[in-house]
Amino acid sequence: MSLTNASPLDAAKAAKSASHVLATLSTSARNDALTAIHAALTASRDEILAANARDLELARQAAADGKLSSSLVARLDLGKKGKYDDMLKGILDVRDLPDPVGKVTLRTKLDEGLELERVTCPIGVLLIIFEARPEVIANIAALAIKSGNAAILKGGKESTESFIAISRAISSALEKTSVPNDAIQLVTTRDVIPELLALDRHIDLVIPRGSSDLVRYIKTTTRIPVLGHADGLCAIYLEQSADPATAPDIIVDAKTSYPAACNALETLLVQDTALTTLLPPVASALAAKGVELRCDEKSKAALASALPDLKIVDATEEDYYTEFLSLTLAIKTVSSLDEAITHINTHGSHHTDAILTSDKAQAEQFMSAVDSSGVYWNASTRFADGTRYGFGTEVGISTNKIHSRGPVGLEGLMIYKYKLRGQGHVSAVYGEGEGKKRYLHQPLPLE
Amino acid sequence: MSLTNASPLDAAKAAKSASHVLATLSTSARNDALTAIHAALTASRDEILAANARDLELARQAAADGKLSSSLVARLDLGKKGKYDDMLKGILDVRDLPDPVGKVTLRTKLDEGLELERVTCPIGVLLIIFEARPEVIANIAALAIKSGNAAILKGGKESTESFIAISRAISSALEKTSVPNDAIQLVTTRDVIPELLALDRHIDLVIPRGSSDLVRYIKTTTRIPVLGHADGLCAIYLEQSADPATAPDIIVDAKTSYPAACNALETLLVQDTALTTLLPPVASALAAKGVELRCDEKSKAALASALPDLKIVDATEEDYYTEFLSLTLAIKTVSSLDEAITHINTHGSHHTDAILTSDKAQAEQFMSAVDSSGVYWNASTRFADGTRYGFGTEVGISTNKIHSRGPVGLEGLMIYKYKLRGQGHVSAVYGEGEGKKRYLHQPLPLE
Repeated sequence: MSLTNASPLDAAKAAKSASHVLATLSTSARNDALTAIHAALTASRDEILAANARDLELARQAAADGKLSSSLVARLDLGKKGKYDDMLKGILDVRDLPDPVGKVTLRTKLDEGLELERVTCPIGVLLIIFEARPEVIANIAALAIKSGNAAILKGGKESTESFIAISRAISSALEKTSVPNDAIQLVTTRDVIPELLALDRHIDLVIPRGSSDLVRYIKTTTRIPVLGHADGLCAIYLEQSADPATAPDIIVDAKTSYPAACNALETLLVQDTALTTLLPPVASALAAKGVELRCDEKSKAALASALPDLKIVDATEEDYYTEFLSLTLAIKTVSSLDEAITHINTHGSHHTDAILTSDKAQAEQFMSAVDSSGVYWNASTRFADGTRYGFGTEVGISTNKIHSRGPVGLEGLMIYKYKLRGQGHVSAVYGEGEGKKRYLHQPLPLE
Repeated sequence: MSLTNASPLDAAKAAKSASHVLATLSTSARNDALTAIHAALTASRDEILAANARDLELARQAAADGKLSSSLVARLDLGKKGKYDDMLKGILDVRDLPDPVGKVTLRTKLDEGLELERVTCPIGVLLIIFEARPEVIANIAALAIKSGNAAILKGGKESTESFIAISRAISSALEKTSVPNDAIQLVTTRDVIPELLALDRHIDLVIPRGSSDLVRYIKTTTRIPVLGHADGLCAIYLEQSADPATAPDIIVDAKTSYPAACNALETLLVQDTALTTLLPPVASALAAKGVELRCDEKSKAALASALPDLKIVDATEEDYYTEFLSLTLAIKTVSSLDEAITHINTHGSHHTDAILTSDKAQAEQFMSAVDSSGVYWNASTRFADGTRYGFGTEVGISTNKIHSRGPVGLEGLMIYKYKLRGQGHVSAVYGEGEGKKRYLHQPLPLE
C-alpha cells in the first residue's frame, strides 16, 4: 500500500498498472499477502492505537465544540474492546473465503481444437470512499487483494492519523509479497474526490461506504459505475390472510431491531380488509416498542376505534417517500395486491420489500412484480445482509439494476473474460454456404 | 408497441410501468407475443416494403445531392433479396431460445423453513438507439420481449417511414397478447436523445447500435449504464515460437476477412527475434491482400531487407492508437511478452487481443494479463462474436468492466433478485451470543 501524495491521475494510472500485475497472481500469492498484512497489523498494534488516540483527541475536542457528532467520535475509536481483534480476524476471514478469481463459468467447443472458456477475473481499479471508521481500511484492502483488484482509498479526514499508521503497516507488509505496492493506495490529500470521480478511463468502479448523502452525491457526480445504495426505503404489505401469530413479530423485528439500518421497515401497507383484524395487534406491539405511527385516514380510523388510547400522527404524502431511520413508521391502506405493488414500485427504493400472507399465489405474484433487490414472503426485511445470506463478507448492498444487486459479496468485485484457445483457427472458413465449416457449439463440462 | 409523441419523460414512465407487468409474464405469454409479431409482420409485408420504398426514394435523392453515403442507402433497403425473410426468421429464432427469465442461480437454506433463492429477472427499461437499418427494430423488439424488458427505441431518421409501418404492425399484434403496448415504444420526434439520456431514474440501460461516434457520444453524455463498445482496437502479438504454418493465415483472416468489423486486427506486435523469420511471410501474405503496412523502424528494416519490393509506410505513434477499419495495419516491434502486454493494455480498447505462440506458459500469461474481453491463443480475433460463440443472438459487444463483457447474448439483458420465503422468521433471534440461533447456510440443489 502506498500512501500517495501523487495527483489523482497519477495515482489512478499507477493503480491501473498494478491491477494488471495483480490480475495474474495465484491464489496463494494473494492469500500470502493477506497473511502478511495480518502479521504487520498485529505487530504494529501499539503504534496504530497511538495514532488513533491522536485522531480521537482531536475529534473529542471538535465534538466538545459542537463541530462533530458524538456518534462519529464513537465510531472512530479503534481501542474499544474487541474492535482491533475483530479487524485482524476480518482479514483472515476474507483470506479463507474461496478464491473468486479464475472460476470457469462457461466452456464451449467451437470446433475441433478450438475451445472457448469464460473465466472470472478482477474488474480492475476500485475507488473506495468511506467515512471515519478506521478499521474499514484494513477490511477493504483485504477484499481488494483477495479479489485481485487494485484500490484507491479515500477516507474521512477525522481518521487521518489512524489511516496513515495502518497504511504504513500494510505497505511494509506488502513489500515482502508479490502484490505491488501501488495496488492499494491511500489518498490523504484534501478535496481530491471530484478529481478522482472524473477519472472514468482509469477507475472501473466506485464503492462509497458511508451516509446516504455521500452515496447520493457520488451517484450524481460520476460516470464511473457506483456500487451501492443511497436509500433503503423498505415496505411490508400486510395482506388479509397473513398469519396473526407471526405478523406482529415480523413487523416489530423489521422496524425496531435496528431502526437506522438500510433494511429496516419504513412503510407498512395494510389491506383494507385487515384494518380491524390484523392491524390493531401490530400497532399495539409497535407502540409498546416506542414506535410513532403515521397513519392515513382509514388506518387511523380503524386504530382509533380499536385502540382509543393509541397515539397516532396523521401521515403526509411525503412520509411515504421518507426513510425515517428511526422509530417512526408510515402506515397506508391499500385495497389490493396490485395497489400494494404499484405503491412499492413507485415510492420505494428497490431495496427489500416483503408480503405477509398465507396465500401462495399472491406471495409469488408479489415477488415477481415488486422491482426490488430483495422480495420476501413472511420474513423480516432485516435479513437483507451479506452475512445473513451466507456470503462470508459484504462489499455493500446494491440497488443497481445491472451487475450486482442486493447484498454483494466478493462476486460483485469480479467480471469475466473469454479465453479462446485455438490451433491456428481462422474465421473465414466457417459459414452457412457450400464448402463452409459449421461451428460445433458443443458445451463442455466446467471442471 | 406504441408509436409515441409523448414527452421522453412520459414515454419512460409508461415504459417503466409496462416493465413491471412484463416482468411477471410467463415464458409462453412472451413467446406468444413473438409469434404474433411474426404473423403481423408477415401479413403487413407489402405495406412495410412500400413505406421502406418511400424512405429509400428520399435517401437516394439525398445521396445524389451528396448528403448521404451510398452505403447507408444500401443498408436502408429492406426489399433486398432475403432481407425481409431474415428479419422474420430472426424473430422466431429469438423466440425459440431458452427463456433467460426465472433461472435460479443460488439456493440456500438459511434456517428451517427459511429459504433464499437468487432468480434471474429482467433489468427493466432499455433505451436502444440505432441508426438506419430498419430491420433492427424488429430484432430489438423481439430481444426485449423475450427477456421481459420494456424498451424505448429511437432510430435514425432516414428510416422513419419504415419504422412507423413496422411499429404499427407490431402494435396491432401486441393488442391481442398479454404484453402491454407501452412495453415497446418507438420515439419518432426529433432531437429527443439528450432528454432520454438524462432519464436515469426511469431508464436502466442504454444500448447504442451504430457508429463508434454514436457510442462515444452516448457514453460521455449519460449516467445511465451503456452496454456497448466505442472502439475495437484489436492486436495480435507474434511471438518468436509461433507456428509459421498458421501465423500468416490467422493474421490475414484477422485483418482482411472483414476490415470494418470491430473485431478486425489493427496492430501487429512482433517479437524482435521473429522479425526476420516469421514477419516476412506474414507481410507478403498481407500485401497480397492489399494491406498497407505501417511499420516502426526495426520492422521496416527487417522487411526492407527480406522483401525489397514491399511498399512500407512509416508508422507514427498515433497509428498505434488508431482503429483503421480498413486495409491498413500498424506493425510494431517489441522485445518481450511483457512489453507486448503493456502495449496492448495501454494502447488497445480492451476488446479482443491474441497471441500466436507455441509456448503454453507465455500464452496463459498473456491471457491472464491482457485486460480485454477476449484473449486468444493461436486464433483469429474475428471469432469475437455472439453467434460464433454460440449464444444464439447478439445484443452487442461490450468493453465494459462490469455486468457484461465481450459478445453479449440475452444474458446481458438480465439481472437477478433475491426471493426469501419464510414462515414468520425474524432476524433478532440470530446471532453469536448465548441463546441466539445460528444460521444454517446450507446450499440447496438448484433444480
